[in-house]
Amino acid sequence: MTGDNQISASQTQFRSIDARTGEPFGEPFATHGVADVDAACAAAEAAFETYRATDRETRAAFLEQIADEIVAIGDVLIETAMRESGLPRARLEGERGRTVGQLKLFAGVVRGGEWLGLRIDPALPDRQPLPRPDLRLRMIPLGPVAVFGASNFPLAFSTAGGDTASALAAGCPVVVKGHPAHPATGALVAAAIARAVAASGLPEGVFQHLVGPGNDLGGALVQDPRITAVGFTGSRGGGLALVRIAQGREVPIPVYAEMSSINPVLLLPAALKARGAAIGTAFVGSLTMGAGQFCTNPGLVLAIEGEGLDAFIATATEALTASAPAPMLTPGIHAAYAAGVDKLASHASVKTLARGEVGEGITCGQAALFETTAAQFIADKALGHEVFGSSSVIVRCADEAELRAVLVTAEGQLTATLQMDGEDEPLAARLLPLLERKAGRILANGWPTGVEVAHAMVHGGPFPATSDGRTTSVGSLAIDRFLRPVSYQNLASGLLPSELRDNSGLPRLIDGKPVLG
Amino acid sequence: MTGDNQISASQTQFRSIDARTGEPFGEPFATHGVADVDAACAAAEAAFETYRATDRETRAAFLEQIADEIVAIGDVLIETAMRESGLPRARLEGERGRTVGQLKLFAGVVRGGEWLGLRIDPALPDRQPLPRPDLRLRMIPLGPVAVFGASNFPLAFSTAGGDTASALAAGCPVVVKGHPAHPATGALVAAAIARAVAASGLPEGVFQHLVGPGNDLGGALVQDPRITAVGFTGSRGGGLALVRIAQGREVPIPVYAEMSSINPVLLLPAALKARGAAIGTAFVGSLTMGAGQFCTNPGLVLAIEGEGLDAFIATATEALTASAPAPMLTPGIHAAYAAGVDKLASHASVKTLARGEVGEGITCGQAALFETTAAQFIADKALGHEVFGSSSVIVRCADEAELRAVLVTAEGQLTATLQMDGEDEPLAARLLPLLERKAGRILANGWPTGVEVAHAMVHGGPFPATSDGRTTSVGSLAIDRFLRPVSYQNLASGLLPSELRDNSGLPRLIDGKPVLG
Repeated sequence: MTGDNQISASQTQFRSIDARTGEPFGEPFATHGVADVDAACAAAEAAFETYRATDRETRAAFLEQIADEIVAIGDVLIETAMRESGLPRARLEGERGRTVGQLKLFAGVVRGGEWLGLRIDPALPDRQPLPRPDLRLRMIPLGPVAVFGASNFPLAFSTAGGDTASALAAGCPVVVKGHPAHPATGALVAAAIARAVAASGLPEGVFQHLVGPGNDLGGALVQDPRITAVGFTGSRGGGLALVRIAQGREVPIPVYAEMSSINPVLLLPAALKARGAAIGTAFVGSLTMGAGQFCTNPGLVLAIEGEGLDAFIATATEALTASAPAPMLTPGIHAAYAAGVDKLASHASVKTLARGEVGEGITCGQAALFETTAAQFIADKALGHEVFGSSSVIVRCADEAELRAVLVTAEGQLTATLQMDGEDEPLAARLLPLLERKAGRILANGWPTGVEVAHAMVHGGPFPATSDGRTTSVGSLAIDRFLRPVSYQNLASGLLPSELRDNSGLPRLIDGKPVLG
Repeated sequence: MTGDNQISASQTQFRSIDARTGEPFGEPFATHGVADVDAACAAAEAAFETYRATDRETRAAFLEQIADEIVAIGDVLIETAMRESGLPRARLEGERGRTVGQLKLFAGVVRGGEWLGLRIDPALPDRQPLPRPDLRLRMIPLGPVAVFGASNFPLAFSTAGGDTASALAAGCPVVVKGHPAHPATGALVAAAIARAVAASGLPEGVFQHLVGPGNDLGGALVQDPRITAVGFTGSRGGGLALVRIAQGREVPIPVYAEMSSINPVLLLPAALKARGAAIGTAFVGSLTMGAGQFCTNPGLVLAIEGEGLDAFIATATEALTASAPAPMLTPGIHAAYAAGVDKLASHASVKTLARGEVGEGITCGQAALFETTAAQFIADKALGHEVFGSSSVIVRCADEAELRAVLVTAEGQLTATLQMDGEDEPLAARLLPLLERKAGRILANGWPTGVEVAHAMVHGGPFPATSDGRTTSVGSLAIDRFLRPVSYQNLASGLLPSELRDNSGLPRLIDGKPVLG
């Protein structure tokens, strides 16, 4: 996503902005500075050994307590988030449910112990020519983690979002750099987490929340030597800046930045022929939901010329033209969206198919649908850049080879979607290897928006969808980002971590063979 | 490790160097250049889809075939490696066994399927408020991998070493940049792998071997856009240079560089009191083995002042003084070793305890043992830098607090070793959390040299031991370095990878719960 709100960092106070009016409201927030970063990182480091030593049940109950405390905030959380984000009530109520569900999912993950990656190779004292030592391996948490809240999910990808939940599940203290677009929402959630920390008898340094406009605060946080990993959801520019800072440290650290994706949707011929019109309407539903402010927004449609394509374009054009204007998250995001759309609209190789209704609010996004050819898409990489918001480009391909060439040109993606019928299976099978190399998630006959929080979810993908395509930021596998393996050789049983002792009852590999418990 | 052999890259031919005499011998090798890199990467990319589509049995049998072909080379492999490396026969025969065993271990891993990380969350069509889609996840190989052979293990960490074996097991074609210190050994092994490729009916691009002195070849390889990951064992300077190249690419890629470690050995009081003299002798055995040319060489000893420390130092001094000189791998490594030892010997805060016997060969390493205090070690970071070869510094600590302060100062390590008795357990328990944060493997009452190839091994550790402490380069977990997750949402069964269909019989998580098959 692009165009996050930037405010001068020289302010010592800042206030919430009403997303619909651009006007400040509410009490001012103190801007945290470099001294606050130092104090927060010191507290996180001081809390680390205590927190990572918690047993699985204690840690799981703590995550559930956070969930309960967030629910207990009540409707003021929804109302505050609505005003700061411009998002509607139903969406934010759903997002609260997702946030709470995510914390509970990780509580279950922590209890299950699969994430510990336990491996035991028992000693072979009689092996020739040399005995084999007793070797036992587990994953341990990296240390304090910095989390950057995203503007587009003020609850589920922010203060208590997936990065925070997975890092806490792993045993890492978290320092959140709250997004300045929703400071009041962030403060409510941070206070709820602090109550859960206290109720669980944990040190305060397990969770801390820093806020402020500008980039200095985040830069100082990533530079702090006590921070051991970074989770980020936001713009490509912002993510890459954090990666550079992290790599320039005396001890470099991993940055998990989820950045930029246009999520190609492939319209395969049989599906297009059978139900091109219906697909067109459904596509616009996905494209315009939440003013298009999703990392998985379908910003690219690839179709092979043939029956049904005109029907698809006709209904998509009709639906988009009628699409209601919706306020965007911040004036900055709106300005970046408007600039991106204008650039496409004025591109010599791009035809504007439709624009949505014009809204009255100053941050209202006006949806946009464009068309170009495969040759033109391939010739200009800019056509493949994300425009964060309801904007999509339909690329007409002459044949399978041209569609494939477009995919090869496209950058790494979070998702790739196939609209297909049974007859399309051979073509889909031919395309799958290429789609696997381009995206972290491949969908059939759905839409990429709506990311299920589950065990088998991948919300990640090859660069620049993320800075590290070997991971996911949604779903239980996200915990792996904050762990590293340690091997114990010939340690006395009393010194071994309890989960690595014999008969722990936990899932593990013994001599490489999986054992359930 | 430091001081790898550097020869001018302008040569178009180069020859093997006899490690004992520094004289060239044998037929010249053509230096591969940028055009060869391009051709190799194109072939690797062309082979990728075919190779990754092989079923598990085919891929496992291929790895076993490589092992058989290496054995079939016969004694010429050992003799060639002896001359190029200066290492003795028994060591190289053992290393061949390790190399072959490693390939067979990965064959078993491939068959077992645990590495696929399979996860299935079945659809919940009746869930409210929204149905859950069918989600299935597997790990897929990244793509072509560049492997940099190490000088100190001409077989086990080189052409067919652990990086190659794990990348091939993952389904990645491999382009090896052979180490110029053993081109003839590398050529023999590369030819064996090529025979296995042919015998298995695989495309030639599955494995390729490039050689040449200088750094241009390796730089071009890491820069090639078709390379998707890098495995490296060597010097800190070399590893960091490759990391920089990889991060500067249009699409950055992961570099798994195993670089620099001094492997602290902690002498705990009860063990020191009970058997200080015996520990001293055993320590020198580990320190001088293979002329100290191991990544896990014990270059740092930490002891609390007390009974037994003088006895330890006395026998260690005696054993080291009597240690036989041994030829080092290359003149460059010897020169770097000699310079590192001289720097310590002339350091105002360091006392030279002993030097080994002087050898006659031009590359003979003369072992060295030094002593300093905790305060001095903490004051000068240079005392914690690796000297690749038989060189170690004993740090005398006044008490537990000082020992802890030294550990906090020390950089990330591959290993940390406890020499301890039963009475030391409380102290060891207090130190373990700190050791876990500093090292990838923690040993009790053994020596860090001798890295078991096993499922529960970690040969990795926090920076600068490796560039990525979340991984290992030895043992079956090493395969994870070359994989990334892909999620499939609502795909028809016929389109799903076979291992993700129902009843695959493979270990997997279903709704987050482990199932054996």
